[in-house]
Amino acid sequence: MTQRIYIHDVVARDGFQIEPSWIPTERKIEIIDLLSQTGVARIEATSFVSPKAVPNLRDAAEVMAGIRRNPAVTYVALVPNARGAERALAADVDEVVLVVSASETHNRANVRRSVAQSFDGFSKVTGVLRGTRTGFSGAIATAFGCPFEGMVPEAQVLDCVARYVDLGAAGVTFGDTTGMANPRQVERLVGRVRERFGDLELALHFHNTRGMGLANVVAGVAAGVVHFEGCLGGLGGCPFAPGATGNVCTEDVVHMLQCMGYETGVNLDRMLAAARRLGEIVGHELPGQVVKAGKATDLHPPPADIDSLSTT
Amino acid sequence: MTQRIYIHDVVARDGFQIEPSWIPTERKIEIIDLLSQTGVARIEATSFVSPKAVPNLRDAAEVMAGIRRNPAVTYVALVPNARGAERALAADVDEVVLVVSASETHNRANVRRSVAQSFDGFSKVTGVLRGTRTGFSGAIATAFGCPFEGMVPEAQVLDCVARYVDLGAAGVTFGDTTGMANPRQVERLVGRVRERFGDLELALHFHNTRGMGLANVVAGVAAGVVHFEGCLGGLGGCPFAPGATGNVCTEDVVHMLQCMGYETGVNLDRMLAAARRLGEIVGHELPGQVVKAGKATDLHPPPADIDSLSTT
Repeated sequence: MTQRIYIHDVVARDGFQIEPSWIPTERKIEIIDLLSQTGVARIEATSFVSPKAVPNLRDAAEVMAGIRRNPAVTYVALVPNARGAERALAADVDEVVLVVSASETHNRANVRRSVAQSFDGFSKVTGVLRGTRTGFSGAIATAFGCPFEGMVPEAQVLDCVARYVDLGAAGVTFGDTTGMANPRQVERLVGRVRERFGDLELALHFHNTRGMGLANVVAGVAAGVVHFEGCLGGLGGCPFAPGATGNVCTEDVVHMLQCMGYETGVNLDRMLAAARRLGEIVGHELPGQVVKAGKATDLHPPPADIDSLSTT
Repeated sequence: MTQRIYIHDVVARDGFQIEPSWIPTERKIEIIDLLSQTGVARIEATSFVSPKAVPNLRDAAEVMAGIRRNPAVTYVALVPNARGAERALAADVDEVVLVVSASETHNRANVRRSVAQSFDGFSKVTGVLRGTRTGFSGAIATAFGCPFEGMVPEAQVLDCVARYVDLGAAGVTFGDTTGMANPRQVERLVGRVRERFGDLELALHFHNTRGMGLANVVAGVAAGVVHFEGCLGGLGGCPFAPGATGNVCTEDVVHMLQCMGYETGVNLDRMLAAARRLGEIVGHELPGQVVKAGKATDLHPPPADIDSLSTT
């Protein structure tokens, strides 16, 4: 009866890419290897983009070569184009991730292409992958709203899903890039996907920018989604709001789902240990709550003077 | 068709009581008066407890005398005993709030009484209130778990509800005192209350200690609850976890409910202005997210070089 939920962690790509300081390659490998022993289903390990565009991930090949692979984990990497896909194949990633924004303005700002140009480029990527063991999944950024355009019509999101499906995507991920999603919207959009694409593998990637991250996860589960992305420690800020939170925190998502009785396959204590190590490595406070507060099941000793009961 | 949700703010009591610095009486009055113009249904303005127990609220009578009352708002104050009730009546509060913990250990730690002793004391309070215009509501702390005992049996919580109802409470509030509640538990416990106590007015007071605060609000709404407490700015920490978040942030709750299409009666812009003013007054960062990130509907200008589209 217990529903199985699959946890994907993206800290090594989405978190590390915007860290203000360089994370040494061995530290990236250390975090990925810690994560791969927690029970997560999937790790987004790096990104094969131009080192000029994302200098923090310029060691993508070294990271992939240095990690100790757990066969139970799918190791994925983001690629922007055919050249990136060739590098990802050379590094033997299990799956590549493509990204387009549902909003034209955000796609132009993010990758300097129109949405149509992005999909044209993706067909070159799938050409590179053809005949290899490496498949791909398609991420759709701003699926729940665009910081420039506001509401994104559901039809635009569903159109991106259709194009990814036509290209042969193994699955699709909806990104709530700047934390605009609300639980009602999540249930509605997931429902539309189910109507039109049946049991297409759908993952949800929420941000906690406005505090709704975990509420949106619950809404996604209620709508039947079983794949959720998060960032260890909640690493990764919001570029439009200094001081605001970014990605939902993987260990907080796992903690909540476990409290609710879902089976995540994750050893939460190991994941919390990995989050603490991550905090040491990045050297600044992380938004994750459970690592600070402890699990809901952790008990505290009562005050020493508790037996001095009032008699009034 | 739009469901009306009623927002209660408790920052002036629950937030201010544990601030490390003294909040001057005029600043407390300023925040209460700002809140009373936002559309909240209810403001917990202070607490008539011993000044030795809660020195930060020793100006309870002055605060009540100094505020500009909005007749649309119910002004309530916490009282621990008959003496407190007399002071609250002298200050003309609209309703007093009583508090007991569902967990014996927490009640002893919090008020140095057994649960039975607390209810004995409450009957003296109701004696003081009899024949006045001032009613009372009953809060139940640790309703979703106790930091000392762990899980609190639902029967203990329901038993506290029954005792409050027998005493004539106008409503009951469940407090998730240290942020242990999860959405599934919320739906289940609220369902039990509905089965046994019909349409008793039930309010929910969540903490965001483990990131689940807003997810629990959504679960409460789904279970039919229409009264929710929060603290402006998310003020009020967790005594068991230094650095961890405490109360859910009122403006983040309102923002989410409005995004979901619920009618809260709150002018969110006014509430965000009050939260910013609160930040100035307390002089430290607050956990509220929307005040940092802006509303989901706030748009940002696209980058200036957005039209330099790639032609590759």
